[in-house]
Amino acid sequence: MTNQRPYARLAPEIIAEIERIPGEITVVSEAEKLADYDADETPGGIRHLPEAVVIPTRPEQVAAILGIATRHHIPVTPRGGGTGLAGGCIPIYGGILLVMTGLNKIIAVDKRNFTAVVEPGVTLGELQEKLDGSGLAYPVHPGEMTATLGGTVATNAGGMNAVKHGVTRHHVLGLEAVTACGEFIRCGGAYVKSSSGYDFTQLITGSEGTLAIITRIILKLGAATTLREILFVPFPSLENAIDAVPDILRLEPQPSGLEFMEKDILDIVTRHTGQDIPRGDHDAYLMIIVDAANTDELHRYFVSAEAICRRHGAAETTVPGDARARRRLLNARENFLPALRAMGELDVIDIVVPRQEIPVFLRQVKALSTAAGIPVIAYGHAGDGNVHLHPVCHNISNEYWQTHLPQLEHDIFVAGIALGGAVSGEHGIGISKKHFLPLQHDEASLDIMRRVKLAMDPDNILNPGKIFDIQARISTKG
Amino acid sequence: MTNQRPYARLAPEIIAEIERIPGEITVVSEAEKLADYDADETPGGIRHLPEAVVIPTRPEQVAAILGIATRHHIPVTPRGGGTGLAGGCIPIYGGILLVMTGLNKIIAVDKRNFTAVVEPGVTLGELQEKLDGSGLAYPVHPGEMTATLGGTVATNAGGMNAVKHGVTRHHVLGLEAVTACGEFIRCGGAYVKSSSGYDFTQLITGSEGTLAIITRIILKLGAATTLREILFVPFPSLENAIDAVPDILRLEPQPSGLEFMEKDILDIVTRHTGQDIPRGDHDAYLMIIVDAANTDELHRYFVSAEAICRRHGAAETTVPGDARARRRLLNARENFLPALRAMGELDVIDIVVPRQEIPVFLRQVKALSTAAGIPVIAYGHAGDGNVHLHPVCHNISNEYWQTHLPQLEHDIFVAGIALGGAVSGEHGIGISKKHFLPLQHDEASLDIMRRVKLAMDPDNILNPGKIFDIQARISTKG
Repeated sequence: MTNQRPYARLAPEIIAEIERIPGEITVVSEAEKLADYDADETPGGIRHLPEAVVIPTRPEQVAAILGIATRHHIPVTPRGGGTGLAGGCIPIYGGILLVMTGLNKIIAVDKRNFTAVVEPGVTLGELQEKLDGSGLAYPVHPGEMTATLGGTVATNAGGMNAVKHGVTRHHVLGLEAVTACGEFIRCGGAYVKSSSGYDFTQLITGSEGTLAIITRIILKLGAATTLREILFVPFPSLENAIDAVPDILRLEPQPSGLEFMEKDILDIVTRHTGQDIPRGDHDAYLMIIVDAANTDELHRYFVSAEAICRRHGAAETTVPGDARARRRLLNARENFLPALRAMGELDVIDIVVPRQEIPVFLRQVKALSTAAGIPVIAYGHAGDGNVHLHPVCHNISNEYWQTHLPQLEHDIFVAGIALGGAVSGEHGIGISKKHFLPLQHDEASLDIMRRVKLAMDPDNILNPGKIFDIQARISTKG
Repeated sequence: MTNQRPYARLAPEIIAEIERIPGEITVVSEAEKLADYDADETPGGIRHLPEAVVIPTRPEQVAAILGIATRHHIPVTPRGGGTGLAGGCIPIYGGILLVMTGLNKIIAVDKRNFTAVVEPGVTLGELQEKLDGSGLAYPVHPGEMTATLGGTVATNAGGMNAVKHGVTRHHVLGLEAVTACGEFIRCGGAYVKSSSGYDFTQLITGSEGTLAIITRIILKLGAATTLREILFVPFPSLENAIDAVPDILRLEPQPSGLEFMEKDILDIVTRHTGQDIPRGDHDAYLMIIVDAANTDELHRYFVSAEAICRRHGAAETTVPGDARARRRLLNARENFLPALRAMGELDVIDIVVPRQEIPVFLRQVKALSTAAGIPVIAYGHAGDGNVHLHPVCHNISNEYWQTHLPQLEHDIFVAGIALGGAVSGEHGIGISKKHFLPLQHDEASLDIMRRVKLAMDPDNILNPGKIFDIQARISTKG
């Protein structure tokens, strides 16, 4: 059943066959140009060259490419904006790197149905620009606006707004995709409700390009925000801050963002950006982002939220009040990762735990960090339990880092999963987290994943080696 | 690959094997008692007897039952509250009817994480009772409170609140389930965000018991509603009413329900309940249900919403104002189906179309209805495009009904799907809509469904014959 024969090399005659596909299509196979496509934003220097980069501009070309790849047994790795943090688009078996940025049309925005139909190469920034002034918005905000929508669907990207609006999968209403053998499937549609067969829209979302190549996306939009304000609330401890979260989430409206951060990351980002934010001297902070219908509602919300925070030990709350101060606060949050990258080598963990477990989990992480002798910076989404952890190679030798990091990360994942957590909240598994996935999913569950993968991609040509490997138990059954 | 050998009979020694499974387990095989389990609420008299009813009380027993069923090649049909409208729980191949009502524990309600862990046999009513006074609520409201949560997950039940809160799948965070061979898989967890392998939580949700048997559900809860009010707005035509919907959905808060109905169904329900509702003489109505934080917000919302409706031609708006009048309005809505059933034979169609297409679609339905000579009553969820259609056998002969109904329904589905719709918004496909599914999904998509089905249930013992049949293209490939 697994059929794991070795992949073929991408011979010149196969490349020529791809080049003959009708319509505008770019094929890059010169060694020096391929070097631009061997990595994404994943830390740790994971790189692998494709044998050719293929940039189609039409869905039918994607079908033709996959037909050729199946016929010749060539692996195909899809790539969007290349902004991934788990190596999902690195072509570790060579073959074809299918760069989807040429399918970049916004096909329709329906202002009555609140839906958009887009091709996968459209970036978050381009969609936002298109929606500006329409009264509608795409509320998923993973942060990196050059990410393509196809990439965010493939990884089920999350972001700050998930506490109110959910993640990418909650906004993907339908997909057109091409299976490994080059056939189109269409699933879902421009509606929220459907009980009409298996939900392949949801199965393909988050499958990191391993089940089918997305060629068209129907997105759910929401009404645009009219009024946004931020509460920045200092707490004596992270426990106090997290303890306030359930009460905050009982208020209406739900906050659009509910972020926690500690003193250390604010010190780091202040040094990096050169812009301090008024914050006094406290151990932990909540950033509560609220969209309201009008200033009355906003005021009422602030009074209630501040009272809750004070009951949980908060000191004086900051409300930026004007656009510039608001931008500065959000800017600080968005610069956490760049500021950490500027310090030197680091890793990116985006584990998720049930949100009330954040303080317990972070106490364990700090103990593990201290024991391992590797600093770990933490911050994240208090509203949904998604914790960003960054082991940083700071004041330690590179050799020490290389030797001790794997065990520390293993121990962190074991701790988070024991609390009911998952390996990745929003970045995906790709290759960098693949060896940790069995800590979360038992063999029976991984086996079913492999079976479903092979049901849809019998020759394992679609993004092979990502999320899990195909071998193991599967060959013994069925 | 399909392995479609005939199912074995459920011989007395196999029944004895099931009875020997440790723990409290009920096995019913006396013919006279089985008659209670041959149907659900689906109209049209579809019935089939199981060979035995098995009622386990523990997840491990479910695993043991499936192990036995696989070994002996016995079909297993899961059943919850038996309230389904598409025949999903009718054991059309006999075998074991696995009644899940014995797994009926509410295992945990987490007031800090806003989650509940339940067994599948817990009913919507039991969960609501448990949550009363907790400040939390499960906002999915398919209407029938005796439905089990397992059944609502299996069919991805929807209901009135979907416009604001989404459908069942948006509240299923994790599942424990047993595969055909009797192995447990666990997917998801008590968190909203995850990008950690294929989302089997979402794949199993809505799969109508054909992929795995659900034994435990992690549900997302929301803050309980503090203040609910209804606007009941008459319009000169359905077009006017639907035209007002996008503007209403731009207001904050989002309405918790946004229902459309026409004069005919209100006349019918009034006759049935004997309770009139103040409504004047208009062609179409919107029922706008709003949950607000306080009366100020409610008042502000009503002013804005009424202004929108008036711009779209609405006459005087009714606001019930007190609990009794509010209850009477909701009661009318909840009695649409019972009132229609009381009129005689009917069918239930719950097609979904992109919501702005509702008037176009209903014009086509009325033309088809007139041409076919079979009355069709329509109402539904204006906020999400889910249209309930009831062909009624009223003032026509049963013979005419039997002869002409299939073609009328076929034509209605063709029309809705041509507008971008789906066969079922919230009831599921089961057996009663199975022959219409190929109108929506092309052969490539159905083929992938069959392949995924067989990847998870290689011997096709789980609820066989539901959603689709296994034969067709699949045997020619892979």
